[in-house]
Amino acid sequence: MSLLVVGSIALDSIFTPFGETADTLGGSAVYFSVAGSLLHPVQVVGVVGSDYPRAELERLASRGIDWSGVEQAEGESFRWKGKYSYDLQSRETLETRLGVFADFRPKLPEAFRSSGYLFLGNIDPELQLGVLEQITHPKLVVCDTMNYWIKGKKDALMALLERVDVLMVNDSEARELSGDWNIHRAGRWILAHGPKRVVVKQGEHGAMLMEPGRTFYAPAFPLEEVFDPTGAGDAFAGGFMGYLARIGSISEDSIRSAMIYGAVMGSYAVAHFGIRGFDGVTLIDVQRRVRTFRDLTHVALAELMP
Amino acid sequence: MSLLVVGSIALDSIFTPFGETADTLGGSAVYFSVAGSLLHPVQVVGVVGSDYPRAELERLASRGIDWSGVEQAEGESFRWKGKYSYDLQSRETLETRLGVFADFRPKLPEAFRSSGYLFLGNIDPELQLGVLEQITHPKLVVCDTMNYWIKGKKDALMALLERVDVLMVNDSEARELSGDWNIHRAGRWILAHGPKRVVVKQGEHGAMLMEPGRTFYAPAFPLEEVFDPTGAGDAFAGGFMGYLARIGSISEDSIRSAMIYGAVMGSYAVAHFGIRGFDGVTLIDVQRRVRTFRDLTHVALAELMP
Repeated sequence: MSLLVVGSIALDSIFTPFGETADTLGGSAVYFSVAGSLLHPVQVVGVVGSDYPRAELERLASRGIDWSGVEQAEGESFRWKGKYSYDLQSRETLETRLGVFADFRPKLPEAFRSSGYLFLGNIDPELQLGVLEQITHPKLVVCDTMNYWIKGKKDALMALLERVDVLMVNDSEARELSGDWNIHRAGRWILAHGPKRVVVKQGEHGAMLMEPGRTFYAPAFPLEEVFDPTGAGDAFAGGFMGYLARIGSISEDSIRSAMIYGAVMGSYAVAHFGIRGFDGVTLIDVQRRVRTFRDLTHVALAELMP
Repeated sequence: MSLLVVGSIALDSIFTPFGETADTLGGSAVYFSVAGSLLHPVQVVGVVGSDYPRAELERLASRGIDWSGVEQAEGESFRWKGKYSYDLQSRETLETRLGVFADFRPKLPEAFRSSGYLFLGNIDPELQLGVLEQITHPKLVVCDTMNYWIKGKKDALMALLERVDVLMVNDSEARELSGDWNIHRAGRWILAHGPKRVVVKQGEHGAMLMEPGRTFYAPAFPLEEVFDPTGAGDAFAGGFMGYLARIGSISEDSIRSAMIYGAVMGSYAVAHFGIRGFDGVTLIDVQRRVRTFRDLTHVALAELMP
């Protein structure tokens, strides 16, 4: 069953304490696909402007990324410029230029409409809904959002939530959406508004999967060097969805394992500027890191309950 | 083998968004003992002033807390006054009055010197060293500290670190001590300065055990209601040490399990003002919560590595 993502395809300019880049490949759909395609082929829906370095995208096609759903429109590509604090714990958006994204109305190629696994990356919830409506029989629909849409398009977002299986957001977004600072109450609020599951990404503290009456924690990989957190959440989503599409299951156990694959992809994303953290990473590397993840929370049961 | 704690025995005045208390039983030795004694008898070394409600301490003796090492000195008891932010994520110390702690020179009863498990609660590192020197054959020495001592008594603290097995601090303390904001590098720095292990407490994000080349994460119990975070770290230490003293082992597996017992005790501590979160809690309750902790990170291995 195929895996589809709709999201931004951007040119990012990033300032970190360790250096800076200008107009580098970025955006939620790009991070998602680069991570997800390590596990399963990915179909992408999005738009780029006439100034986009399409050759760089095409080079990534050999990984199993199908860019045929990406329109090229007259005008400027989506651009984001941001600056991280010295400890990478916070970031400031210096500039967002929607460019061709302002008038984007996603139209899926016929071959994409039968997708089973759908990730609605962080774009206008009306566009997310527009894509969802073109999918005939989705098996699992996961969506992301951000404070900008929570503030500006709350109604559309709430309508979308009623139709998705999993909301995947970071902790500040979950708090803002629910209006509750306690993350567990925030999660319960979201579960009462549509999604069957909530994934709360917490950066260096890992990610949490909330289901009614049950919680699962995936730690973050212990990294002594974090270079650029941009895209870590989308890479997480790529690992999560790529794993599920690969094994073709959405059982409770599978979803927990998918959290670990997500965390592994997040750990690659932050290791370098842009998508460079994935350079040379193979499925074998991913599986090796998954195995080391297990040890991060492993307790011998005989010891625990003597 | 017996379990000994030296630490503060305080009267706390606490302001939270949910209410306030004045001159309530608190201090590191009190939280530690109340939590630890659910698992193993605890011997306490400390000092109180002539104004301390000793009867309240004595009432706790029936839990298996031996207060015979607590001096009563002429003067005022140690007092701490603090105020939490609306989301309990930060707190401000409004007042600290050392009182009789200023001239405290701990002298251990003969019966306490053979203790196997020693917790040096957060007091002046010179006093912590003074207690350590009176213990004849400690099996496991764990110490806590805080920013105040890191700034003001760095040399004594570094001398102490060379003689302890485990440093147990929160993340901001680990960062301040090492001068490194990356928590994993901070941990490695500490491991290079004496302790064989570092436990980094991260509040609602759980706690991390760092050993050379290996890391373990214990999540925090998912709580929708957190009332008063005061003492959570000391209760964690009480659960950690109480468990180890109970099973009489300090193997790597035991230490990991001890982290879970610590996290469980922390979850009780935050549920009410002061030590009231432990009211009515039994060993059966603790073991039930330990069992539910396992599910928080449990992944089916067959799913993880298909």
